[in-house]
Amino acid sequence: MISSRLSKLSESLRTSGLDALVLNAGPSLVYLTGLHFHLSERPVVALFTADHEPVIILPELEMLKVTGLPYEIKAFSYGENPADWDGVFRKAVTALKLDGKRIGVEPRQMRLLEFRHVKSGAPEVDFPDASDVVSSLRVRKDADEVAAMRKAVKVAQSALEAAIPLIKGGMTEKELASELVIQLLRHGSQSEMPFAPIVSGGQNSANPHASPSDRKIRPGDLLVVDWGAAVDGYVSDLTRTFAVGEVEAEYRKIHQIVLDANAAGRAAGKPGAPSANVDIAARKVIEKAGYGKYFTHRTGHGIGLEGHEDPYMRGDNMQLLEPGMAYTVEPGIYLPGRNGVRIEDNVVITETGAECLSDIPRELRVVG
Amino acid sequence: MISSRLSKLSESLRTSGLDALVLNAGPSLVYLTGLHFHLSERPVVALFTADHEPVIILPELEMLKVTGLPYEIKAFSYGENPADWDGVFRKAVTALKLDGKRIGVEPRQMRLLEFRHVKSGAPEVDFPDASDVVSSLRVRKDADEVAAMRKAVKVAQSALEAAIPLIKGGMTEKELASELVIQLLRHGSQSEMPFAPIVSGGQNSANPHASPSDRKIRPGDLLVVDWGAAVDGYVSDLTRTFAVGEVEAEYRKIHQIVLDANAAGRAAGKPGAPSANVDIAARKVIEKAGYGKYFTHRTGHGIGLEGHEDPYMRGDNMQLLEPGMAYTVEPGIYLPGRNGVRIEDNVVITETGAECLSDIPRELRVVG
Repeated sequence: MISSRLSKLSESLRTSGLDALVLNAGPSLVYLTGLHFHLSERPVVALFTADHEPVIILPELEMLKVTGLPYEIKAFSYGENPADWDGVFRKAVTALKLDGKRIGVEPRQMRLLEFRHVKSGAPEVDFPDASDVVSSLRVRKDADEVAAMRKAVKVAQSALEAAIPLIKGGMTEKELASELVIQLLRHGSQSEMPFAPIVSGGQNSANPHASPSDRKIRPGDLLVVDWGAAVDGYVSDLTRTFAVGEVEAEYRKIHQIVLDANAAGRAAGKPGAPSANVDIAARKVIEKAGYGKYFTHRTGHGIGLEGHEDPYMRGDNMQLLEPGMAYTVEPGIYLPGRNGVRIEDNVVITETGAECLSDIPRELRVVG
Repeated sequence: MISSRLSKLSESLRTSGLDALVLNAGPSLVYLTGLHFHLSERPVVALFTADHEPVIILPELEMLKVTGLPYEIKAFSYGENPADWDGVFRKAVTALKLDGKRIGVEPRQMRLLEFRHVKSGAPEVDFPDASDVVSSLRVRKDADEVAAMRKAVKVAQSALEAAIPLIKGGMTEKELASELVIQLLRHGSQSEMPFAPIVSGGQNSANPHASPSDRKIRPGDLLVVDWGAAVDGYVSDLTRTFAVGEVEAEYRKIHQIVLDANAAGRAAGKPGAPSANVDIAARKVIEKAGYGKYFTHRTGHGIGLEGHEDPYMRGDNMQLLEPGMAYTVEPGIYLPGRNGVRIEDNVVITETGAECLSDIPRELRVVG
């Protein structure tokens, strides 16, 4: 699997006019090498070229990770003193004869820490944005990847069902978030999850990016729960909105509108359609109902090894959907200073249309 | 609190000859502004100067986070289309008249994503490494910060005590790691933890940076558990090594050596001593016992808002310890292909010496 990904990468490098690709610790490195490192103060960098085995620069104390791999990789290791690191990077980059060449980078992942070390070994190099090179490989999930995402959805759904009976008025958002994480682990999520759950009640629910607070859940609140699991490195990312006891009529109304927008968004995905269509379909429902200005974000984003990746469901994104692409559909309405609703599902494009991986009930359930 | 930190930063900027400091989402931004953002595909950047209110550039959908703050901050927001972001960054940087000036960066935190957007607004700027500017503020913890770390240690210790009775032969490392996370949450850790626990048994314990695997815990194993909690944003980071049933005599012996090294390292910290002393004291014990070459990493690292931060306990680090500095003492012995031991505590420098925050038993406990 790794070998086939590496040879696809070599092809892409040749056609994209890049002499190399440089990656630091993160999902693309996992995808291409199977190697997991944490982003830390010790830089880990891998260099990929079309014609040579990959090169990796890493701390001595991580060397065990690169021994006995089922593919060739050349390792350069460094000790604990940062003053010596530039020298090791220079040696590695020099070995590949990369100075003066074009080395693609992933700006979303690469830090100045790694970048400056690589640059010290290749001061005359041009470092164009090569995000698309790896993304174009990662974006089409194979059957194993979809199977892992399917499991991650199942784990997330079972965890939420186990957490719902625990919700009661007076509980804080943080307490519920913590219970939900416990259920995610009990139901089989990896402990490194894509993101910490969002639990936001009442006026916090009107903030699409709220963090769980010490605010107590209380009757009359809408309660937004945005959560996900990770299985074999692949993530799920779902949202449901609940009513804590009796809620205002307008809140029930916006929930229904978002429900319809979610359905329209899910229905709009198919091979050959631009990603934009998903956003346009969902947004149209909300605009038609007069709440357009309260839907303040794009309709979704790709998911896979990362919680957010290509393709993005934005009205201006002409990237065409292809079989294997997986993404969220998550329209919302946020009434500032009042309450908000979001309903999010995970979809994967098939040969003929789109399959929704998530099926936990979407209607407004009353809790608490 | 934020205001006093911001005025200390202004002073530091003046004395360090920097015109500004630029931060992206992360712990230093939290420290200086109280603002939490996730690192995502949407860049969040704050610019600090000595004489003006800070400026922040962020997505429109995060604007709620910067309203009603107890200090002045000027916000520039952007929409969902990345093509428009450079323009917003240019406007913000231009407002501060920073082109041609010196803007300090944190290379360990800043990604090329944010860096390139800032640079688009200030192409002629020099971006020196200013890690020390914020670090010198963050490194001396005040009483509230130490109180949070003390709680984070207590939570971690109670969680491990609750997990130990659950350990049994046949359980996988991953299963135990998951149970430990559950106990961390039950005992009051935030769900965003400093790091996922390391649980490594048998020959995996000889890899200081192992990730929990599907390997089953079995009699004869040493079992290294490296775990931590987060409370109010501050972390703990501890390690204990267990014996699963009866273990080889040499394993008991190296455990005792590491125990002695840990004690020596804990005793070596005091105000005015170089950080190096902690490493030297611990390492001497292991070297004297003939295992020096199997202690392959530094003796410790600072902790606080991050799991790894200044000061680093390396034999070549002359940074002087000062009251409020907090760090780990974590010597280890790793016998390649066999088993390993690490014992890690959290220490804070006081006016007169060093206080160890952690006190969960260090001797070789038999489990399983």
